[in-house]
Amino acid sequence: MDLNADLGEGFGIWQLGDDTALLDVVTSANVACGFHAGDPSTMRRICADAAARGVAVGAQVGYRDLAGFGRRRIEYAYDALRDDVLYQIAALDGFCRVAGARVRYVKPHGALYNTAAVDQLQAAAVVAAVVDYDRTLPVLCQPGSVLAQLATGAGLRAVAEGFADRGYLPDGRLVPRTAPGALVADPDEVSRRALRMAVDGEVVSVDGPIVPVRVESICVHGDTPDAVTIARQVRAALVDAGLDPAPFA
Amino acid sequence: MDLNADLGEGFGIWQLGDDTALLDVVTSANVACGFHAGDPSTMRRICADAAARGVAVGAQVGYRDLAGFGRRRIEYAYDALRDDVLYQIAALDGFCRVAGARVRYVKPHGALYNTAAVDQLQAAAVVAAVVDYDRTLPVLCQPGSVLAQLATGAGLRAVAEGFADRGYLPDGRLVPRTAPGALVADPDEVSRRALRMAVDGEVVSVDGPIVPVRVESICVHGDTPDAVTIARQVRAALVDAGLDPAPFA
Amino acid sequence: MDLNADLGEGFGIWQLGDDTALLDVVTSANVACGFHAGDPSTMRRICADAAARGVAVGAQVGYRDLAGFGRRRIEYAYDALRDDVLYQIAALDGFCRVAGARVRYVKPHGALYNTAAVDQLQAAAVVAAVVDYDRTLPVLCQPGSVLAQLATGAGLRAVAEGFADRGYLPDGRLVPRTAPGALVADPDEVSRRALRMAVDGEVVSVDGPIVPVRVESICVHGDTPDAVTIARQVRAALVDAGLDPAPFA
Amino acid sequence: MDLNADLGEGFGIWQLGDDTALLDVVTSANVACGFHAGDPSTMRRICADAAARGVAVGAQVGYRDLAGFGRRRIEYAYDALRDDVLYQIAALDGFCRVAGARVRYVKPHGALYNTAAVDQLQAAAVVAAVVDYDRTLPVLCQPGSVLAQLATGAGLRAVAEGFADRGYLPDGRLVPRTAPGALVADPDEVSRRALRMAVDGEVVSVDGPIVPVRVESICVHGDTPDAVTIARQVRAALVDAGLDPAPFA
Repeated sequence: MDLNADLGEGFGIWQLGDDTALLDVVTSANVACGFHAGDPSTMRRICADAAARGVAVGAQVGYRDLAGFGRRRIEYAYDALRDDVLYQIAALDGFCRVAGARVRYVKPHGALYNTAAVDQLQAAAVVAAVVDYDRTLPVLCQPGSVLAQLATGAGLRAVAEGFADRGYLPDGRLVPRTAPGALVADPDEVSRRALRMAVDGEVVSVDGPIVPVRVESICVHGDTPDAVTIARQVRAALVDAGLDPAPFA
Repeated sequence: MDLNADLGEGFGIWQLGDDTALLDVVTSANVACGFHAGDPSTMRRICADAAARGVAVGAQVGYRDLAGFGRRRIEYAYDALRDDVLYQIAALDGFCRVAGARVRYVKPHGALYNTAAVDQLQAAAVVAAVVDYDRTLPVLCQPGSVLAQLATGAGLRAVAEGFADRGYLPDGRLVPRTAPGALVADPDEVSRRALRMAVDGEVVSVDGPIVPVRVESICVHGDTPDAVTIARQVRAALVDAGLDPAPFA
Repeated sequence: MDLNADLGEGFGIWQLGDDTALLDVVTSANVACGFHAGDPSTMRRICADAAARGVAVGAQVGYRDLAGFGRRRIEYAYDALRDDVLYQIAALDGFCRVAGARVRYVKPHGALYNTAAVDQLQAAAVVAAVVDYDRTLPVLCQPGSVLAQLATGAGLRAVAEGFADRGYLPDGRLVPRTAPGALVADPDEVSRRALRMAVDGEVVSVDGPIVPVRVESICVHGDTPDAVTIARQVRAALVDAGLDPAPFA
Repeated sequence: MDLNADLGEGFGIWQLGDDTALLDVVTSANVACGFHAGDPSTMRRICADAAARGVAVGAQVGYRDLAGFGRRRIEYAYDALRDDVLYQIAALDGFCRVAGARVRYVKPHGALYNTAAVDQLQAAAVVAAVVDYDRTLPVLCQPGSVLAQLATGAGLRAVAEGFADRGYLPDGRLVPRTAPGALVADPDEVSRRALRMAVDGEVVSVDGPIVPVRVESICVHGDTPDAVTIARQVRAALVDAGLDPAPFA
C-alpha cells in the first residue's frame, strides 16, 4: 500500500505544510510544479530529499493561478491546458533528474483534480499531456472518475486513491465538503478506515452500508500539525498490520 | 556557420516578432521558456516547427519578469537563479521531446545575458544549471565574457556568437547601445559584416581598426519586418559564399 | 451617442491594438487595469491622452489571468472577485487623478463580461465593488443582462451598449460567436447598423425581424487595422447624421 | 511616538506574520499592496481592521516580484518604477476609502527600501509617485537617506524611523545584516533601546559611542511569535514612560 501527500506547496518566502515531516511518512510525494504553488528551489529540494528517502515523486499539476492556489475552476481551452500540464511535468522532471530520479506519476491538484474527475475536455487534456510526455507514467486519481476512464482508455495506468479522512457516499463518491459527514476528524477512526481500505478494500459509507474502495494509495494531509500526527498514525497502523508502505510507482 | 535568433517571445494573446519567417532563416532558435516571455503552447508549436525544419532549439532562459521582458537586471541569489534557469531548460526540453528532439543549447536572454557576461555569481548560476541538467549542452554567449570563461572552466562548450548589426569596439566588446555607432542599419552593410565574420573571423571596429571576432554563430533579429528582411539577406549572403548555414549544436 | 472601445490592452513590451488611433475615434475608453492586460505605465499614458482629448476613461476590469487575457471563465469566490475588481478600479483611478480626471464608469472584460451577464454571484460581486468604491459610477453592460439588473437594483446606473458588428437574435441577445451571422464584416453595413441603433434604437436580427436595441453607447473595436477603419467610419456616419458622439458618463 | 510594522504580507492561501496581533500593537500599519506580497482581500480586511482601531494605514510599496518577496534589487527604469509605485498606492487607497479612511503615508519595502536609501533614480521615482498621487502624504524612511533628502527637496514630509532591534554604526547607519551586532535579540534590551530613541533621541552604537537618532516612528516586526512578544513589550515600555503611541500621520 502507498501513502501519498501534497508537498512543496509553498511559494518563495511563503510556506505551507510541514514537508520535512511528511517525507518521513509518505511513500509518494505529490510535488507542486510552480503554477498554483511551488517554486524552482523548493522543487529541487523536495526532489533531492525524496530521492534520498526512496520516496517517489509525482507531478502535482494545476491551473496557472497562484492567487487562487489552483482551487478555482478555470475554463481552459484543451490545448492550453494540455500544454500547461506538460510544461509542469517536464519542469519537475528536470529536478528529479538532478536528484538521480525521475517523475514517477502525475496527480492533478485542487480544482483541476475535481474538474478532471467529471469533465471530458479537462480530463482529456491531462491525459494527452501524460501520453505526450511519457506514456509509462501512471495517473493518480479517484477510481471511476472521468480522468481514470480516459487515462485507462489511452493506455495509461490509472492508480486509484482513497481518502481515509473523508466520508463516502454509498455509491463510492466522496461526501461533498459542505455536507454532514464530509470529514473524519478522529485520528483513531481515520487509521481504522485506512486499514480497512488497505486490507479489505472497503469503507463504511456515511449512511451505513459498506462500500468497496479498492485503492493502491491512501492520501494523507500535512497542512496542519494535527494532519501530520494523523498521517503518522495511519502509517503506523499500516506498518503494524504488516502492510509496509511502498510506492505504487 | 550557424544563424541564431530569438523566437517564441510572445505571451498568451500577445505576439512579438515573426516566428514563422525566422524559422526559415535561422539554423538555431533561441526559444523563450515562460519566465520573461513564452507560454507553453507557443513553446510546443515552435519546438515542433523547428524539429520539422531541422532547426536546433536552444533554451532562451531569463529572469522571472514578464512585465520587464527580462530586460532589467535582478539581483538574484545564486541558488534561486540556478534553479529558475534549470526549471526553464527542463520545461522547454519537455516540448522538444514531444517533437522528437531535445534542447540543444542554452542562451541567456536580455539582462541575464548582459549580467552573466560580467558578473561571477550570475554566470556561475547559469553554468551550474547547465552542468546539473545536462553537461553536454553548449552555452551560446559572447566570446571572452565571464559566462564563456566559467562555462569553459566547468567543462561546458562555450559557443561564441557575433552580431553583424552591432558596432564593435577595438577591444572586441560591443559599442554600448547609447553610444554612436552602436547599430548598423544598412542591410547590405550588415550582410557584408556577417560574411567577413564568417569567412575571415574579423570585423571593422567603430574606430577603424580590424578586430578578430571568431564566432560559430551569428545572431540575427526578427522583431520588425525590416529585421526579417535583413536576416534573410544575411542568410543569402552566407549561402552565396558557399557557407551553408547549419546548427552549431 | 457614445462610442466605446477597449484600450491599453498591451502588457510590458507587448502591444495590442492601436490605442492612438482609437483615442481619436471613441468618446469612452475602456482601459485595462493590469489583471488580464495593461501595465501601470500604459494606464498612465492612456489616462493622460484620454483626458487631453475629453475622452472618458472607464475601468476595464477582468479576471487575474494574463496568460488567458481574461477570456476564460474562472470560478471566483464572491469576496475575491469583488476585491479584485475594486483593486483594479482604484488603481486606474490613481492614474486618472494624476491626469486631472477620474474613472467615469466600469466595464467588465472578456469572460467576466460574459459571465456577469448571466451569473448572479459574479454580477453581484462586480456590483458590490462599484457600490463600495463609488456608487455614482455607471456600469457599461448589455441591456437585460443579470449584471444590468443587479446594478439597477443596487441603485447604480446601468448603461446599455450595442454592437454594430455583431449579429442579434430576435430576442435581443447576440448570435453566439460560433454560429452563422455572428459577425458583420462589411464596413458600410456596420455603419448603417450603428446609425439605426443610434437613431431608431433598433437592429435587424439575423432571422429578419427588427429588434429594439436601446443603447447609450456603441462598442467598436481596434485590434486590427480593419477594425480601426470601421470604427472611424462608424464615427463619421454618426457625425454626418448630426449625432455628435459624446461620453455617456 | 509612532510604532510601525509590516502587515498584510500574505498572498492568497499563504500567510506571513500575525496581522491580528500586530494591529493591537502598532499605530501605523505598512500594508503590502500586491506586487511583492498582499492580495486584494487581505488589503481590504487589514484596511477595515486598522480603521476600526484608529491605526494609520501606509502603502508598503515594492518591486513587482512575488517570487522574491521584493527582496532582490531590480534595475527599473524611472518611469516604470514611478508608475508601479503609484499603482500600488492608488489600489490600497481604494480599500482605505471603503473603510472610511485614506492611505496616510508611503513606505518602500525590502530591496526598494534599501535601494531608494542610496540610489538617486529609484528614490526620485518613489518621490515622483507620491508627488503625483498626493503631495500631502509623508514618506516613512531612514533619516539621512537619499530618499529622505529627495522627498524633502520635493516638498514632501520625510518621517524618520528607527530600529530598536538593529545595531547602529557610529555614523548613524545600520550595521549590515551580515556583520556582528546587526541584530539585538534580547526583548528587554530592545525595549530599552526603543525607549532611549523615543525619549532621548539616541542609541548606543555597536562600537560604544552614543549616536543621535531622532525618529518619529519605531519599526517593530511581527513575522515570528517572538517578534510579536517583543513588539508588545516595546509598546508597553513606551506606555509606561507616558509616551502614548500615536500615528505620526
